[in-house]
Amino acid sequence: MATQGYKFEGWLGLDKESIGGKMVWGEFKPKPWEETDVDIKISHCGVCGTDLHVLRSGWRATPYPICVGHEIIGTVVRVGSKAEGGLKVGDRVGVGAQSDSCLGRDSECDDCASGLEQYCGKFVNTYGGKHFNGAKSMGGYGMYHRCPSHFVVKIPDGLDSADAAPMLCGGITLFAPLKDHGCGPGKTVGIVGVGGLGHFGIAFAKALGADRVVGISRSETKRDEVLRMGADSYIATEDEENWANKYGKTFDLIISTVSSSKMPLTQYLGLLKREGTLVQVGIPDDGPLGFNPGVLINLRSKITGSKIGSPAEIRQMLDLAVEKHVKPWVQVRHMSEANQTILDMDAGKARYRYVLANETIQGKL
Amino acid sequence: MATQGYKFEGWLGLDKESIGGKMVWGEFKPKPWEETDVDIKISHCGVCGTDLHVLRSGWRATPYPICVGHEIIGTVVRVGSKAEGGLKVGDRVGVGAQSDSCLGRDSECDDCASGLEQYCGKFVNTYGGKHFNGAKSMGGYGMYHRCPSHFVVKIPDGLDSADAAPMLCGGITLFAPLKDHGCGPGKTVGIVGVGGLGHFGIAFAKALGADRVVGISRSETKRDEVLRMGADSYIATEDEENWANKYGKTFDLIISTVSSSKMPLTQYLGLLKREGTLVQVGIPDDGPLGFNPGVLINLRSKITGSKIGSPAEIRQMLDLAVEKHVKPWVQVRHMSEANQTILDMDAGKARYRYVLANETIQGKL
Repeated sequence: MATQGYKFEGWLGLDKESIGGKMVWGEFKPKPWEETDVDIKISHCGVCGTDLHVLRSGWRATPYPICVGHEIIGTVVRVGSKAEGGLKVGDRVGVGAQSDSCLGRDSECDDCASGLEQYCGKFVNTYGGKHFNGAKSMGGYGMYHRCPSHFVVKIPDGLDSADAAPMLCGGITLFAPLKDHGCGPGKTVGIVGVGGLGHFGIAFAKALGADRVVGISRSETKRDEVLRMGADSYIATEDEENWANKYGKTFDLIISTVSSSKMPLTQYLGLLKREGTLVQVGIPDDGPLGFNPGVLINLRSKITGSKIGSPAEIRQMLDLAVEKHVKPWVQVRHMSEANQTILDMDAGKARYRYVLANETIQGKL
Repeated sequence: MATQGYKFEGWLGLDKESIGGKMVWGEFKPKPWEETDVDIKISHCGVCGTDLHVLRSGWRATPYPICVGHEIIGTVVRVGSKAEGGLKVGDRVGVGAQSDSCLGRDSECDDCASGLEQYCGKFVNTYGGKHFNGAKSMGGYGMYHRCPSHFVVKIPDGLDSADAAPMLCGGITLFAPLKDHGCGPGKTVGIVGVGGLGHFGIAFAKALGADRVVGISRSETKRDEVLRMGADSYIATEDEENWANKYGKTFDLIISTVSSSKMPLTQYLGLLKREGTLVQVGIPDDGPLGFNPGVLINLRSKITGSKIGSPAEIRQMLDLAVEKHVKPWVQVRHMSEANQTILDMDAGKARYRYVLANETIQGKL
C-alpha cells in the first residue's frame, strides 16, 4: 500500500460493542488491486442506518473487523488500466452501498445486462461483503477507499459533497422506487417514516413533480420540519384520530421507510387507491411484517420492495438533484467524531442525516 | 311473488349453527322487482368456501336469515323492460359473487367506468348484501334468483351447466389474476393450495398457455390428481426437503389460494424471479399474514390481491373454457342434499367442487 503513497486506515468495528462508540482507528487491507479498480481519497462519508445494523450484527453475524460507511465521496487518486467510465485522477466521485456485481463474468446475467446490477445474485456490499478476488470489502469511515470502477460515479458540479454523500444510499433508496412507480404530475405520494431515508422521499417526490407529497409519521413533533422540507401535508398517525379512514383510498404511491415490524401496514395499505403501490424499503430486524390481505384483494393494490439503485440510476438521481436543487438536511461532523456520531444516530438525533468529513471547511459546519 | 307463478324459496341459514348442517328450507322475499332485473329459475349452484364463512359468520356478523350460494346457473324466466345485455326468457345464464355495483348511478365511478365493477366501493354481494333499493340480497341454494341484469351473463353453448357454475366465483377468482399478470407462453406459474380454487388455477393457467404450471400444496396426497388436472409438476412443501431453495427464483407468477395465516409466505415469495408477482386470493380468518419484506426488496417482486372478476371478464373466461375445453372436477349433488354437502365441504372432502342441482340427470351424477 505504501507504494501508492497512502495508507488504508479508518474506523474499525471489532465486535458488537463497537455500536456503543467503541470503533477504533486502525489500518486495514483493502481488496488486492485489480486493473478495473479505482482508489479514492475520501472527503465525506454519510452515516446510514445500515452502518448501525452491521456494527451490532443486527441482521446477521458481521465479519469483524469492519470499516463501515457506504455513502462515500472523494477524489480519484488511482485509476486501473481497465477502469470503466472515463474516470481520471482528480475526479470527484461517489460510491454507494454496492461495490460489485457479477457483470456477466461467469455466465449471462439478466440483472446486470438490464442495468439492474443491484438485483444481481452476486451483489457485493461496499463493506462486509466478499469481493470476487476473495477479499473482504471495507467501507468509507476512513481515509481511502478502493472500488471496482463500474460502481464509481462522477459527482456533477453544482452538488455539494456533503449533500451528495447521503444520496448515494439514502437518496437512491427513495429515488429509485419513486421513479419506478410513476411518481410525477397527477400523483399523490406518501412517505411513511420521515427520518434519514424518508426526508429524501419528500425531496425527490417533489423534484419528480408529484402533485401532492404527504409525510406520514407517528407523532406531531416533526410536522413543521417536514412541511419545511417541501411536503404538502403531514399525517401524525398517533395524534390524528381516524386518519386511516379520513385519508383512505387517496394515495397513488406510498414508500414505507419504517423498519419496525410494529408498523400498521394494513392501515397504510388502506390509504392506497385501486391499483396503488406501497414500496417497503425498510427491513425490520424485529420479526415479520403482518398484514390483512383483504385490503389488497379489494383494491388490487400491491406491496413491493426496492433495493438501492444501479450506477445509472444514481447518475440520473444526481442530475435531477442538480436540476431541481434538491437539498438534503445534513449535519456534517469531522471524521474524528465517528464514534459520537454513531451514538447520536442510534439515539435518533439525526436531523436528518449525518455526514463525516475528513476536511471540514470553517463556516460550513 | 305468486303473480309470477313461482316462489322464491331455498335453504336458509338462521344462525351460526347452520354451518353444522342446520339450514332449513323456506320461502324468502327477493329484492323488490326493478325493471333492470332478471328472474332466473335455478338449475345449478356451486358450493363456494365463502358460503361456509358466511353461514358461520367467519369474517363478520352475517345478516341471518341468509340463503347462500353465488355460483348460480339457470334459465331466465322474467326480464325487466330496462334489462341490459339482450337477455330473453329461456336464455341459460349465470350469476357470480357480485349482484350489483354503483354503475355510475350517483356519481362518476372510475371502477365501474373501467369495466372493473368488482372494485366499486358500492359492491353488492350476491347474498348477504344490501341492494340499492334497500333489500337484502339472497343467493342460489334454492329455486329462483333475482339479479340486476348487468351482472347476469349468458352461458355459452358447449359448457355444461354443472361445469360452468363453479367458474362463476371459483374459476374467475383464478382466471382474472392469471390474465392480469401475464400468464401465457414463456411463463412458469405456481398455484399454491390445490382445492376448489386452486384446481381452477391449474386448468386456466394451462388454458392461457403457460409453459409450466406447478401445483404447490402441503402434502403428497394430491400429487397424482394435480398432475392429472394438467399440472406439469407438483411441490409438496411438507414432504420435499429444501423445496424453498431448490425452486428458488424460478417462478414468474404465483397465485396463493391459501386462507390460513400459517402459510409460509416468505418462502413462497422466495420462489419468484426478479419482478415476479404473488397474488393472494384467499382471505384468512385466523389473523394477519406475516412475511419478511427483505425478499421483496431483494427481488423487486410484489404481493398483490385480486377480487373475482367483472361480468366482461367472466364472459372472457367462459369463452376460453369452451375454446380450450376447460373441465373442472365437480361432484354434483341434488339441491335437497345441501346440508350434507356443506358438512362434506367443511370436512375438506370436495374433489374439487360441489355443485347443487335442482334437476339431476340420471347417469350424470
